[in-house]
Amino acid sequence: MKLWDKGYSIDKQIEQFTVGNDREIDLHIAKYDIQASLAHAKMLASIGVLTTNEWEQLEGGLKELYDQCLQGNFTIEEQFEDVHSKIEYELTQKLGEVGKKIHTARSRNDQVLVALHLYYKENLQEIKELTKTFFETLLSLADKHKEVLLPGYTHLQVAMPSSFGLWFSAYAETLIDDLYLLNAGLQLVDQNPLGSAAGYGSSFPINRALTTKELEFATLKYNVVAAQMSRGKNERTLAGVLGSLANTLSRFAMDICLYMSQNFDFISFPDQLTTGSSIMPHKKNPDVFELIRGKCNKIQALQTEMILITNNLPSGYHRDFQLLKENMINAIVDIKSILTIFNYSIQQIQVKEFDINDDKYKYLFTVDNINNLVVGGMSFREAYQQIGGEVEKGTYIPDTSKEHTHEGSIHNLCLQEIREKLPN
Amino acid sequence: MKLWDKGYSIDKQIEQFTVGNDREIDLHIAKYDIQASLAHAKMLASIGVLTTNEWEQLEGGLKELYDQCLQGNFTIEEQFEDVHSKIEYELTQKLGEVGKKIHTARSRNDQVLVALHLYYKENLQEIKELTKTFFETLLSLADKHKEVLLPGYTHLQVAMPSSFGLWFSAYAETLIDDLYLLNAGLQLVDQNPLGSAAGYGSSFPINRALTTKELEFATLKYNVVAAQMSRGKNERTLAGVLGSLANTLSRFAMDICLYMSQNFDFISFPDQLTTGSSIMPHKKNPDVFELIRGKCNKIQALQTEMILITNNLPSGYHRDFQLLKENMINAIVDIKSILTIFNYSIQQIQVKEFDINDDKYKYLFTVDNINNLVVGGMSFREAYQQIGGEVEKGTYIPDTSKEHTHEGSIHNLCLQEIREKLPN
Amino acid sequence: MKLWDKGYSIDKQIEQFTVGNDREIDLHIAKYDIQASLAHAKMLASIGVLTTNEWEQLEGGLKELYDQCLQGNFTIEEQFEDVHSKIEYELTQKLGEVGKKIHTARSRNDQVLVALHLYYKENLQEIKELTKTFFETLLSLADKHKEVLLPGYTHLQVAMPSSFGLWFSAYAETLIDDLYLLNAGLQLVDQNPLGSAAGYGSSFPINRALTTKELEFATLKYNVVAAQMSRGKNERTLAGVLGSLANTLSRFAMDICLYMSQNFDFISFPDQLTTGSSIMPHKKNPDVFELIRGKCNKIQALQTEMILITNNLPSGYHRDFQLLKENMINAIVDIKSILTIFNYSIQQIQVKEFDINDDKYKYLFTVDNINNLVVGGMSFREAYQQIGGEVEKGTYIPDTSKEHTHEGSIHNLCLQEIREKLPN
Amino acid sequence: MKLWDKGYSIDKQIEQFTVGNDREIDLHIAKYDIQASLAHAKMLASIGVLTTNEWEQLEGGLKELYDQCLQGNFTIEEQFEDVHSKIEYELTQKLGEVGKKIHTARSRNDQVLVALHLYYKENLQEIKELTKTFFETLLSLADKHKEVLLPGYTHLQVAMPSSFGLWFSAYAETLIDDLYLLNAGLQLVDQNPLGSAAGYGSSFPINRALTTKELEFATLKYNVVAAQMSRGKNERTLAGVLGSLANTLSRFAMDICLYMSQNFDFISFPDQLTTGSSIMPHKKNPDVFELIRGKCNKIQALQTEMILITNNLPSGYHRDFQLLKENMINAIVDIKSILTIFNYSIQQIQVKEFDINDDKYKYLFTVDNINNLVVGGMSFREAYQQIGGEVEKGTYIPDTSKEHTHEGSIHNLCLQEIREKLPN
Repeated sequence: MKLWDKGYSIDKQIEQFTVGNDREIDLHIAKYDIQASLAHAKMLASIGVLTTNEWEQLEGGLKELYDQCLQGNFTIEEQFEDVHSKIEYELTQKLGEVGKKIHTARSRNDQVLVALHLYYKENLQEIKELTKTFFETLLSLADKHKEVLLPGYTHLQVAMPSSFGLWFSAYAETLIDDLYLLNAGLQLVDQNPLGSAAGYGSSFPINRALTTKELEFATLKYNVVAAQMSRGKNERTLAGVLGSLANTLSRFAMDICLYMSQNFDFISFPDQLTTGSSIMPHKKNPDVFELIRGKCNKIQALQTEMILITNNLPSGYHRDFQLLKENMINAIVDIKSILTIFNYSIQQIQVKEFDINDDKYKYLFTVDNINNLVVGGMSFREAYQQIGGEVEKGTYIPDTSKEHTHEGSIHNLCLQEIREKLPN
Repeated sequence: MKLWDKGYSIDKQIEQFTVGNDREIDLHIAKYDIQASLAHAKMLASIGVLTTNEWEQLEGGLKELYDQCLQGNFTIEEQFEDVHSKIEYELTQKLGEVGKKIHTARSRNDQVLVALHLYYKENLQEIKELTKTFFETLLSLADKHKEVLLPGYTHLQVAMPSSFGLWFSAYAETLIDDLYLLNAGLQLVDQNPLGSAAGYGSSFPINRALTTKELEFATLKYNVVAAQMSRGKNERTLAGVLGSLANTLSRFAMDICLYMSQNFDFISFPDQLTTGSSIMPHKKNPDVFELIRGKCNKIQALQTEMILITNNLPSGYHRDFQLLKENMINAIVDIKSILTIFNYSIQQIQVKEFDINDDKYKYLFTVDNINNLVVGGMSFREAYQQIGGEVEKGTYIPDTSKEHTHEGSIHNLCLQEIREKLPN
Repeated sequence: MKLWDKGYSIDKQIEQFTVGNDREIDLHIAKYDIQASLAHAKMLASIGVLTTNEWEQLEGGLKELYDQCLQGNFTIEEQFEDVHSKIEYELTQKLGEVGKKIHTARSRNDQVLVALHLYYKENLQEIKELTKTFFETLLSLADKHKEVLLPGYTHLQVAMPSSFGLWFSAYAETLIDDLYLLNAGLQLVDQNPLGSAAGYGSSFPINRALTTKELEFATLKYNVVAAQMSRGKNERTLAGVLGSLANTLSRFAMDICLYMSQNFDFISFPDQLTTGSSIMPHKKNPDVFELIRGKCNKIQALQTEMILITNNLPSGYHRDFQLLKENMINAIVDIKSILTIFNYSIQQIQVKEFDINDDKYKYLFTVDNINNLVVGGMSFREAYQQIGGEVEKGTYIPDTSKEHTHEGSIHNLCLQEIREKLPN
Repeated sequence: MKLWDKGYSIDKQIEQFTVGNDREIDLHIAKYDIQASLAHAKMLASIGVLTTNEWEQLEGGLKELYDQCLQGNFTIEEQFEDVHSKIEYELTQKLGEVGKKIHTARSRNDQVLVALHLYYKENLQEIKELTKTFFETLLSLADKHKEVLLPGYTHLQVAMPSSFGLWFSAYAETLIDDLYLLNAGLQLVDQNPLGSAAGYGSSFPINRALTTKELEFATLKYNVVAAQMSRGKNERTLAGVLGSLANTLSRFAMDICLYMSQNFDFISFPDQLTTGSSIMPHKKNPDVFELIRGKCNKIQALQTEMILITNNLPSGYHRDFQLLKENMINAIVDIKSILTIFNYSIQQIQVKEFDINDDKYKYLFTVDNINNLVVGGMSFREAYQQIGGEVEKGTYIPDTSKEHTHEGSIHNLCLQEIREKLPN
């Protein structure tokens, strides 16, 4: 069943190619499509396009379908092109002619737009909450392990002392940057596109302020062409926003995989969190963190897809936009499961003390030795030359006694100050 | 059931996260995994690791599973981690201890590698055939419509005369470039990785030349570390190769969508190939070509994903590589359906003659006018100034009589020469 | 001259390869490096690491160099590895031993980090201002041409009436989305990384709150490891942020190029803004808009570069990060010139009225006809069928009389409401 | 000076924006532009468009400019828009009216196209040679160090024995894959586009076969529209081809950086090849390999840029294509210097023997132990359980005595067979 049936039948092959897996993907947005239809119906009644009785009938029908969504019983059968056709069909089956009136003064373009806006908004908020939970977990771990030193590396070479406190809270503070972007993403999708119809509005005297309020959007995307152009723009932006978060998680997972290597051996996880090999019986592999890394890298690639699908297309709707949904929704589902699994796994981390007397870590403290000389009056450059000479001659003796006291350093992590930076 | 069972149970959440949708994706490669196992078993028998009887049993069991694949009855149930576990389970159920011997002298790493090589090889060959069919279709259309002129554009401005003959055969000749790349891709995957085990070979005296011959690979990927490194490298390359083809198809689809616009109106398609609007009753939209364009653009984005998943990982297997399969296989499935649909649709194209006397097309012939003057002895630069002056003053009269005779021009399309360039 | 001279000479080839074009790029950040050094010196004096006299000397020397930057006289000669070496050299030449003290308690890592943060912050603010200017230009144009209709397209097919008012203000409102992201970008770079040294802080009792205040950063990046990790993260984010703006500008430029085509012919520009052809004397090409589009698309590609350079690198500085600077700075320079040229050019646009009676635009009004029937009581679906039937039979008569009155539609552009959405 | 001067002056700002840094970039292709002009002039004489005398004059003038290129004296001053304008100007200065005739029967579009084809072809051949040199270096190093073991890793976990022989030759064999792609790239650019003019050919009876032979192209790009479309397609392809090579080099550099870390310590380089720190006197950093990695990753990002600039543009020239040149040429310059530096540096590698008795490497040999049991008749799965049990109980004793004898394994590297795979 098609909303645009013209009396001639579309080629079967073509139909299959054009519908694709829309039915499956649309299940993710069914709930939001119904929400928007409820607001739209109410608005139509308020401007007299629907009678109160018609509105009440539509509301009843829609609420029933909404409940099906919540209970997981809503389905889109093969005869329907998409979720919108299915819902209109159900309403018409139940209510007769009145059912068909739900499509008055809109188009599938703004129907799917508003449903996606609502879906994105709710999911970004969930992702924010999951991120904040993970942030708190990391701050707790930083606090718990703040006394345990770690070698710090630059160029993958042993460099200067670091600590588990620094390491955990570094990723926490970096998540704040990701939250800045998540909030920008939320601003984008928190603008009501409903009423833009096919991208040029309509001659109906609709009240877009009313649906905006009803759907709890912060504002309208006023211009109907701009509303239409948000298709693709939103996905491009959200892919970038999720990519930013994915970037932080991916780098953290990389550190974990490296630190679990026998050659670093700074951390471990219980056997239940590791995975074996089909050939080497001794292996306890960090698959879960590798998959976090890989899935996050995949999410980082998503923006290129979103851009390529839409780039250089003139303004106005193009069917290509249909293809934006699938991987965007997959990425949202994935990032939520990644955050959940990461938060669950990281709490089981076992931190280890490294052997500070191991020869390979000896030079971690050269800068502290230099600073001693500087405090004694030497210029940094000269002190650098002196300690460098001792290293060359093999006479260098590490001074491991120094406290690092400035803001954000090993012995002054400023966890509370970091917590206070967390945006709403 | 896991090939690396250690007696402690893996965390359920972790398991679900790590297995992902491997079962579903692995169905695409089951057939090839069995092919490789058949060759492997034969080789193991040849070096005495299996007795002839054991080999015959394994061969029987594998062939049965192979037939299931061909008939579409092969399934991977929830208790199996992947296709490899499933097959080993079935063999063991049927044959007892002998079933377990199929995994001797290899690892899941080279199992999946060789299965993917075989899958890629067969599919690239299919894609080549589909591309050649499309190439022939385009040459036929070029020949059929070679007399019909088209305005040629540069900067989207009316420029010089072109023709449907040129337009169709331009895309045909461009497909040859894509075939060069497809052949390079085939060279990559036509190297046998079997025997590389987990990426470092094994102490078994296996005969890799034998499995190479058995599986009809052109050569071996000798070095076992190199064989392992082909994971990711192959996907990166194939994504680029398919992306090249997608690029040609996408641009062609863009031209089609533009030329179907009422503002160009150079072509049309039967109603059965167009799609309507839920709001505008007059619309006959080129959705099928927009989706070809969009899907091709999505395929063009794939290489970035493949690179990002693998980039900067040190040599040696990482679980991240598991994530390469899904979208790579999806892209292969997609490009085949795109080629099929495009080849089917384009044959129904209706070409139209544009009105050569329409004012907007008047200047198509200025270069021909200039050339007249040049042939009469004027330098090109002067002739350019003279005709330019006539255009400015409004005294310009087009000379539409010229033949373009050089190789590859409107009246000398060289279709046979282009056909002869087609590589094997 | 190197800050890390060890007494043996570095291989010449290697040196050339590693230094690259840093000297040229560093000119962009010299001013900011000096600003940061001024703040750092003041802070060192405040904690007693420098005497007041030393501080005053350093301040004098730095201010002199700062003035050179402002006057465009600052240079980095071939013997210097980068801007930091050059500045330290100049100070030492002038002040002797005191000059060397400027490097106390920091590393080139946090030197370049803080200079880049300052550079990015100032430039993002400039870009914001340029964007707001362009926004106002577009709103003015929307207001000026609000009565002039444009055909609206979907699928590149004639769809429904639009207008120049809608078109101009659509891009204006979309710029607001870009500003949300620009502001998120600003939040990222408005955090002081100075004091993080090589990424692990130092044993000096430095006062990072003081330099934060001195440099007018909104807050600190507290955690020193997080500060170090902002290298790459910032560039990744800014590339995405500029890419968002570039996306809007690129699409607008695409519309312009299309609308300038003789086949649309909705707009034109004075000859001085167009470019000719070396072969076709009649051409007046929209090169400036094509280059805006192309340069914007290049900027959209930048994020992939930023991600690929940093992806999967474990935490801690890597020399690869040096490569982030060049194209990031190029993109910033480019987007500023694009905004300037676009704002300058668009004001010279000449809008044209299209012929509403031209057959190809006839069906623009079908939805308005349908709506008439709906207002008369018919369901939308039925009205759609009726008008669709008229179109098929050729009996359709357009109703071009409709006003579109709802928020954001042709006759109610809500320009003031859009202006009020503009974020600070 | 412009080839399309129309008598009105182009806006200064616009001019600067549109010309960009073309003059600088065009120096790379000047030599090839002249080569093509020489062939074009000869062909024009052969069809009687030039007299023999005119041809000889043009040939003389062009050869003089060609010599300037070879000697590095060729310049493009500010008054010229690009290399083509400059050359025509010089010819006209010297030869008068005859100079202007060089542009007969072509356009800047096919001038720059053919120059780029020639430039790409020559450079790809150079890159092939550099790659083959590097390949030989790696095979020599593999042979030289074939007895030295390395731990092999999977999941960054100690896995199975590997060797320097395997490691070096793995990268050598992988380079063969890159050569397959380089050869495909060469096929693309080895097709003569000259004569396509502005993308639609011309009415002159030019002889394209003659210029093809003269310029030593393998074949023609016959179809003039296809020739024009190769702009962008070539760059897209070459970016992918260089990206493939860059991918191999980048991964190799990553291994090197990791293996130089004190925590692996498998290799080192002479001090002259390492770089110091401005703060840590003990540092000897692998900057050269980090920059190889970073520059290679940048090259891997290039294809996205090439795609984004051209994607979804309808057929026909667009000015955006001008922007393809800069980073494409930069990438070619870079990859050549990377190959040179890498080949130079790797020869100075110092390989180290790792301590096979170190506890962390103990389990490298579990698979060899299992294989002993399998050879003794146990199934692989059972043997796996038994050795796994010993590992768990701490009773495992490594068997380090095994030879790996199959093709491509530690003790049978097949270097000669790998060498024989090298394509022409």
